[in-house]
Parts: sequence; C-alpha cells; structure tokens
Amino acid sequence: MIDTITEEETIPLVAGDAASPAGFRAAGLHCGIKRERPDLALLVSEVPASVAGVFTTNKVKAAPVRYTQAAVASGRAQAVVVNSGNANACTGKAGLADAAEMARLTGVALGLDPALVLVASTGVIGVPLPMEAIRGGIPRAARALAPEGTSAAEAIRTTDRFAKTAAVRLDIGGVPVTIGGMAKGAGMIHPNMATTLGFLTTDAALPPAVLRLALTRAIADSFNSITVDGDTSTNDSVLLLANGRAGGPPITNGLELKRFTAGLTAVASELAKMVVRDGEGATRLVAIEVSGAVSDAEAHQAAMTVANSLLVKTALHGGEPNWGRILAALGRAGVEMAEEKTDVLFGELEVVHAGLGVPGVWNAAASALEAKEITVKIRLGIGAGAARVWTCDLSEEYVRINGSYTT
Amino acid sequence: MIDTITEEETIPLVAGDAASPAGFRAAGLHCGIKRERPDLALLVSEVPASVAGVFTTNKVKAAPVRYTQAAVASGRAQAVVVNSGNANACTGKAGLADAAEMARLTGVALGLDPALVLVASTGVIGVPLPMEAIRGGIPRAARALAPEGTSAAEAIRTTDRFAKTAAVRLDIGGVPVTIGGMAKGAGMIHPNMATTLGFLTTDAALPPAVLRLALTRAIADSFNSITVDGDTSTNDSVLLLANGRAGGPPITNGLELKRFTAGLTAVASELAKMVVRDGEGATRLVAIEVSGAVSDAEAHQAAMTVANSLLVKTALHGGEPNWGRILAALGRAGVEMAEEKTDVLFGELEVVHAGLGVPGVWNAAASALEAKEITVKIRLGIGAGAARVWTCDLSEEYVRINGSYTT
Repeated sequence: MIDTITEEETIPLVAGDAASPAGFRAAGLHCGIKRERPDLALLVSEVPASVAGVFTTNKVKAAPVRYTQAAVASGRAQAVVVNSGNANACTGKAGLADAAEMARLTGVALGLDPALVLVASTGVIGVPLPMEAIRGGIPRAARALAPEGTSAAEAIRTTDRFAKTAAVRLDIGGVPVTIGGMAKGAGMIHPNMATTLGFLTTDAALPPAVLRLALTRAIADSFNSITVDGDTSTNDSVLLLANGRAGGPPITNGLELKRFTAGLTAVASELAKMVVRDGEGATRLVAIEVSGAVSDAEAHQAAMTVANSLLVKTALHGGEPNWGRILAALGRAGVEMAEEKTDVLFGELEVVHAGLGVPGVWNAAASALEAKEITVKIRLGIGAGAARVWTCDLSEEYVRINGSYTT
Repeated sequence: MIDTITEEETIPLVAGDAASPAGFRAAGLHCGIKRERPDLALLVSEVPASVAGVFTTNKVKAAPVRYTQAAVASGRAQAVVVNSGNANACTGKAGLADAAEMARLTGVALGLDPALVLVASTGVIGVPLPMEAIRGGIPRAARALAPEGTSAAEAIRTTDRFAKTAAVRLDIGGVPVTIGGMAKGAGMIHPNMATTLGFLTTDAALPPAVLRLALTRAIADSFNSITVDGDTSTNDSVLLLANGRAGGPPITNGLELKRFTAGLTAVASELAKMVVRDGEGATRLVAIEVSGAVSDAEAHQAAMTVANSLLVKTALHGGEPNWGRILAALGRAGVEMAEEKTDVLFGELEVVHAGLGVPGVWNAAASALEAKEITVKIRLGIGAGAARVWTCDLSEEYVRINGSYTT
C-alpha cells in the first residue's frame, strides 16, 4: 500500500520568467492581429545560444512548426518571435513564406543572422497571417526589449485567463544558474511530444545534444503529462535556449546534468500545471496517479485514459465520487488490469478496495472532491509501473468557450 | 470527387418493436429500482430461439455481461430479462449471484429452463442490485407479457429522452419475415464490439453460427459506428434472437442471408442513430463520412477521431464552421493523411479544398451547420478506404447531466 510515485529532488521555484536568466531580454506588445490585446512577443539572447526543441506529433503541422523544426536542427539560436491570435496553420505555401518572413524581419530588426531566429504562432487555424500588422510590430518589439518577461508572457496568450511564467535558481558545480520560462495554453491540450507553446531559457552552458536530452526528460514529466481535452494542437512547440552567460564549464553529464534537469523539470512542470489549472472552463486541478501497473508506460496510458474520460471529468466537475466511471475508463484503457485487484483513493480516502466500493464513504468522498486541487490515486496491484498526469474538470464553460471561438 | 460511401440495399422501416416478429412477447413495468419510472423488462419467445450476442470489450465487465456471454455460447435462448437503474457492475461475486438469480427467477416465472434466460442490466455502477424489488417484479412481468414491445422499450431507458424501437418486414425466398428491436443508450457511448444495450428479434430461422455472422456484420455498420462521448460502457450488449416462427427453411447463406443481413442492418442502424440523436445533451445528429483513406479501417479510425474531438463537437454545437479543428483531429488520428490532399465538405458545400480554406464560404457554411442533421464529408485523397460514423454535438447540457448523475 505504499505510494510508488516518488518525488525527485524538489527545486524550489522563485519569482521570474523567460528573461530572468543572465543575458536574455524580452518584449510583448499589441501589433494588430487581435483587436486590443497584446499579440506579438520577442525573446532574445545577447549571444547565440544552444537550442533544443520538441514539437507536435500532429501530421497537420503549422507553418511556424515546420520552419522552426528545421531551424533548431543547427543547435544554435538567438531569438524567438511569437504571435498569438493566428496559428498560421493550414495556410499552405503562403504560410511558410510568412513564417520565413517573420524570422527575416526579426533578424533585420535585431541585426542578427535570420537563421538564428525561431518562429512560433498560436490562434485560429486556416486564416492567413495579417503580415502588415506583424511587419509593423517586429521593429517596435525589438526596441522594447527589456530584462523582464511578463509582457512577452502576456502577448502569447490566447484563451488563457492568466500569463504563465516560472523560474528556479540553483547552484551547479559552484556556479549560480537560472532557468526561466513562459507558456501558453488552455485548450487543445493533449500530450504528444510537446503540448501548447513553451519557451524555456537558461544562462547555464550546455552543448545542443545535452540540451536535447535534458529537454526530452523534462517534457516527459511536465508538458507530456497534462491534458485538458484530448485534442493535440497543430502548433505545439517547446523551445529551450541556453546561452552560457552564467559562466562556468559546459554541463555535459554527471551530477551537474542531473541537477540541471531537475531544475528544468521544476520550471516545465510548474508551467504545465498552470496550463491545466487554466484549462478552458476548468474549476479544479486534478492529479491522476497510477501505481502497480505492469510498466510506467501502461501506468501513463491508464492515467491518461482516466484523465480524458468525459464522464470522469464531468463527475469531477459536479463533485460526484462516481468511481464506477474511473473503473470503466481503466477497463477500456488497453492496459493490463483486473477489477478485483484495483483500489481507488480520493486523496487519502479509499473509495474502492479490491474492485468493490468501500461502504459508507460516499459523503466523505464528495467532501474530498470539493477541493480546488484533487489527487486521484489508482493502484492496479499488478506490477511496479507508476505515472502521474494532470487534468482538469469539464464544465459548461468549456462548451461555451469552444462553441463560440471565432465569434 | 465521387462519394465512395455507397448505400447498401435500403430496406424501408415499418412501425414495430422487439415483440413484432411472430412468436415474441414483451413486458415492461416499475418494480422499484428507480423511484417511479419503469425499470424491468422481459422479452420472451414462445419457442427456444437461436441466439447471437456481442458484448463490451471493456475489461471491467458487469456481472450480467459475464453471465450472458457464457449463456449465449450454447446458441439457444428463449427469454431476456433486463433491468435499468442499476448496472450490477463492480459488484463482485454477489453481483454474479444476483445475475444468476435473475435468470433463475425468470425461468421459474415462465416455466423455462433458466439456461435459456439471458440477463442485462444498465444504470449506476458499483451499487448492489436491489433484489427484493426484482424478485417481486419478475413474476408480475411474466404475467404482463403481450405481443407489443413499447413498455419493454420504456423500461430499459436510463438517461434516454425517448424509447427506441425499430422494425422491418421483408420477403426472404417467398417467406414474409419480420425483424424488430429496441435499444437504450444516451451516454457512455463508444464503439467497441457493441455499444449500449440492444435487443433484436426475428421470426426468421437461422442456425446460431449464421446468426452470429449476420449480427457481426450488422453491428459493424450500426452500433459500432456511433459515438457520443468516447466512453465504453461496462454493460454494452446486443442480443439477437431468431425463433423461426415465420416458417420456411433456415437461412444459411446466399442471397437470403444477404437480404436478411440488410434488414438486420437497417433495424440496427436506425436504433444506433436513435441513440446518437438522443445523446446526452445533443442537439444535432452528425454523420462523419471519410473517403479516400488507405483502407476502410483507417477511414473508420479517422472518422471516429473527428467524431470524438471535443473541439469539433463544441464547434458543431455552436454552429461554427471551424474546419481547422477537423484537420487538426485528422492529423492526430494515427492514419495516413496529407493536409494538402484533404477536402472537407459540410453537406455539399466544400469548405476546404486541397488543405486550404475555400474563400468566401464561411457564412454559407455556418448556415449549413444550423440543420438538426448534418453530414461532414472528408476526402483524404490517398486511397479507396471509406467509412461513416454518427456522432452528436457536445452541449452544456451534457456536462449538467453527467455532473449530477447520482444526485
């Protein structure tokens, strides 16, 4: 009956954002894609940085995803330009040309090689980018750069109710290092390589290959472990830039890399959880922890199936401890499980023991579900596989938001 | 550009239900599981019948599913007893004993071998069956049997807004044959072998092995081609009884079997579409037709992914022709597709051609989505695979219904 989900080294979060690491600056402003709100962001390192990226696995990839996926292959980047309000997806060859022009204009405005500029977009699909607005906005954003990233975090929002930033400071081999980040996302959130847009920065020094390793690891336990609605975006990207301005020798392996990855995971997890907490219409953040599966992969699959079940999500919204829906979701998850070996707990309260409802706990369970942050623990009792994912409840508000997105 | 979804021989529906074929009787009444509404149904053939069944693939199977799955293996059955208001799922050994007792009591009340009695349940999961109510109800139901099945169709409802019955009459080799049926279901609807509860009857004569073949075929294009919410029930079962009272030689193959299967598919499709039309909170019935896939299986998978996308379903609810969400769903469907080869039509109106939005059709598309019955056609332009599934929109009402199911 022990909980097999163990915390890794916990790195405490500090106030900060993607511009907090040494040598990074950012800007965010309104250029005219949206009606009034900020819609253009710029993130710049004062020197070329190592870069790693993870991108959507959707076969329909937005133009900026295709552009940036090719650009990060070099392992070097110095700036990222991001617009919200338009995804530049399903826009054909014109869309690819627009993404390339965004990089070129940013290079001109910053006096950089355009090959060092990455591009991301988020917003409505299938509408050509309003390039006039972007052409006017990029030089203004370049002039507005500051060692502070909240305006950039504001400018990448779509249906987000709040801007999402996070940072940690840690000592790596005697060198004080900062890792910062920002993210956007509230709907069309489902893990597959990456989810939503995330931009991570650090002043630590890491070669691109090592940076990729650290990012892949951090993503698995953060952006790839969240879901709002099971839909995978055409634009999902997470980029990580490391400019080495903290000083010290490059981090290549050993304890230093482990510690860096823990810090990166802390920032990425915080941003990912913010995305779920801000899930469209969500009123509750729900951790689904599965243990006792035959493998970590099956535990993840089981947790994700429960996390995406409409019946589970609506029950969580209504505060109903209708655990039968959790068992029904586990039964169709395509993983090894046996009803009679399965326990379910809401927080520390066991509601299902060995496949049967625990008598007399319904009211206590309903009380447990009134909290804003809930943990559902599932013990499959078969093996040693474990995983945790985060989801949110499904409310009438989600339907209202998504039934009138373009109007 | 031709539509590769072709209709099979269309058998016209007639008024009728599961008691319409010769030699079948049915009853439905209130026995006390629910507060006031009918909750117990009986369906009986005057002679032992051939039987075939398809059952949920959920690993968490309700007790009546386990019981009946074993019982249909004999290929013979004469009665079906069904309760609503309680699924008898996740109820352990006591639940299996209760299912067996339901069969035994029905056998006693009808003077039949209990081995010829099948059992089905639907309703809340994890609560012991109130056997006192059922013990009182079964003899009363046996006395109430009549050659009319609407009260039985009423008694198997859960959140259904209306009772679902359908029938066809057809001439098979000079013999007039009737096929009738009833179904229940409005939520926890997703295809996997069978969906929801369906009870089909016929006075045609078919050996069990042939009956299984016909049922498997009919289910594929009906109950296995619908979705409301992507959740697969623990209780899904479709049973088909053939008692041969129409006279004539047994149907074993050839044109007769083809015609019988067409009739069976017509009844099953009508019932399945009724389930979607009655989808919890649904305001629109939506056919998703995919053609040009590399195989029928991939076409089905693509159609189901679109049909289950929350973003597509909420857009359909809001009447928004937000076709980008359809392309995004296709891109994550795990099937071969290329954005630039894909067309999307709302009814006959092309909104996406070769992956790009058709200019100037947004308002016409929005008008097309105001209809109560909508067809979304997707041409992948790669191969010859085709499939059609039915889904419904997702409304605030679905959330309200499922957020307060047990209260």
